[in-house]
Amino acid sequence: MTGTLYGLGLGPGDPELMTLKAVRILKSVPVIAWPAPDTGPSFAREIAAPHLPGGQIEVAIVVPMRTERFPAQDVYDRAADEISAHLDAGRDVAVLCEGDPFFYGSFMYLHERLAHRYPTLVVPGVSSMMAAASAAGRPLAARNDVLSVLPGPLSDAELTNRINSAGAVAIIKIGRHFKRLRTLIEDLNLTPHAVYVERVSLAAQRLMPLSEVPDDTAPYFSMILIYKGGEDWVANLPSPGSQL
Amino acid sequence: MTGTLYGLGLGPGDPELMTLKAVRILKSVPVIAWPAPDTGPSFAREIAAPHLPGGQIEVAIVVPMRTERFPAQDVYDRAADEISAHLDAGRDVAVLCEGDPFFYGSFMYLHERLAHRYPTLVVPGVSSMMAAASAAGRPLAARNDVLSVLPGPLSDAELTNRINSAGAVAIIKIGRHFKRLRTLIEDLNLTPHAVYVERVSLAAQRLMPLSEVPDDTAPYFSMILIYKGGEDWVANLPSPGSQL
Repeated sequence: MTGTLYGLGLGPGDPELMTLKAVRILKSVPVIAWPAPDTGPSFAREIAAPHLPGGQIEVAIVVPMRTERFPAQDVYDRAADEISAHLDAGRDVAVLCEGDPFFYGSFMYLHERLAHRYPTLVVPGVSSMMAAASAAGRPLAARNDVLSVLPGPLSDAELTNRINSAGAVAIIKIGRHFKRLRTLIEDLNLTPHAVYVERVSLAAQRLMPLSEVPDDTAPYFSMILIYKGGEDWVANLPSPGSQL
Repeated sequence: MTGTLYGLGLGPGDPELMTLKAVRILKSVPVIAWPAPDTGPSFAREIAAPHLPGGQIEVAIVVPMRTERFPAQDVYDRAADEISAHLDAGRDVAVLCEGDPFFYGSFMYLHERLAHRYPTLVVPGVSSMMAAASAAGRPLAARNDVLSVLPGPLSDAELTNRINSAGAVAIIKIGRHFKRLRTLIEDLNLTPHAVYVERVSLAAQRLMPLSEVPDDTAPYFSMILIYKGGEDWVANLPSPGSQL
């Protein structure tokens, strides 16, 4: 009997936004695996930390943060080999995933290597996009709105075209594209409609009108929401403390 | 001291896909409010039921299911009045929301009536869109894909245009539009790329290639995912039992 592979969506950051199912599985497996940058802690492991029972085998998947270039396939080849060895020995393995495993997540690189060989269960999680709208206090999309989710690395031409034609927009994967994206949104006269959200649901959360962001860079875990028609509302965004 | 208004995202249906935070708040409030159709049970209340402590005051918000016409504003006016009375008396009220409260949900109709008058907290939930991709066993969007979320009531011309230009598509709010949508997808030669998902995460879940759906109608809680380039995969969708 081989073990089962789990992809556990952990939600946007607040450990209390994990699902009951993710917590149950997290506590029950002998092996957990989590992505980490080459320097600094694993965000996924930090989310799970308050729920870890202790004594689990841990597999670190160290992914070099080379920004756009999609992660070196050999990192995932090696991680898949290591996880396979546990599964072959009958040990269940839970891969910890920030947000939702299948919403622009890196779990897919392990899933495509392993899911055809082992029993696999993907547990969906609260995505940071949903959490950002909740924190902002306004529906991202409603009624018959078209919502477009746009990765920041897209070209200016494609972003312009897609922002212009969408009803509601979430721009993800901002990171080092922040300055370029802000200029592009300004050129489209949409700055008054744009909200910046960083590290949503964590104590370090920052949420403000895009026009008020003092920085020229943004962390990987940030997002811009564009609320067309939401100009007056963005100008009067609730201050961080007023929303509980 | 007035009470606090909570919008609780309950996730797609499986009560175990509720977050720890939603469960904690659900158990702690003296008053819960939930939407219900004019006939039949409240899906939101069914999701929450295993976690209810008993003895809570319950406010039913009966929304006539008149398909496209956006719900009669007077239903929400009356519900807001009833909820206000509890909040004014210092009682916290949790509004139960299927999926995520701010992702095409009806909570917005109460939020816009009440959030400026009372302390308000929206707790994001796992959306059925994320859960559908997990159940299908394939990422809905990855890398630099553009994801478009399209409500089924949109016109054929708009749907065609948007489906053609998107990288990945989720069509929501299908219901009585199912037959029209299926024809439209067929005309675009995308049927081999389309997956139908109904009542995701529940025991009654149905998940199959769109080409195999025998019905001409679909329930409100259903969705079509279009995976461009996913033709071979859709043809070999895992059978419901094989995915745990």
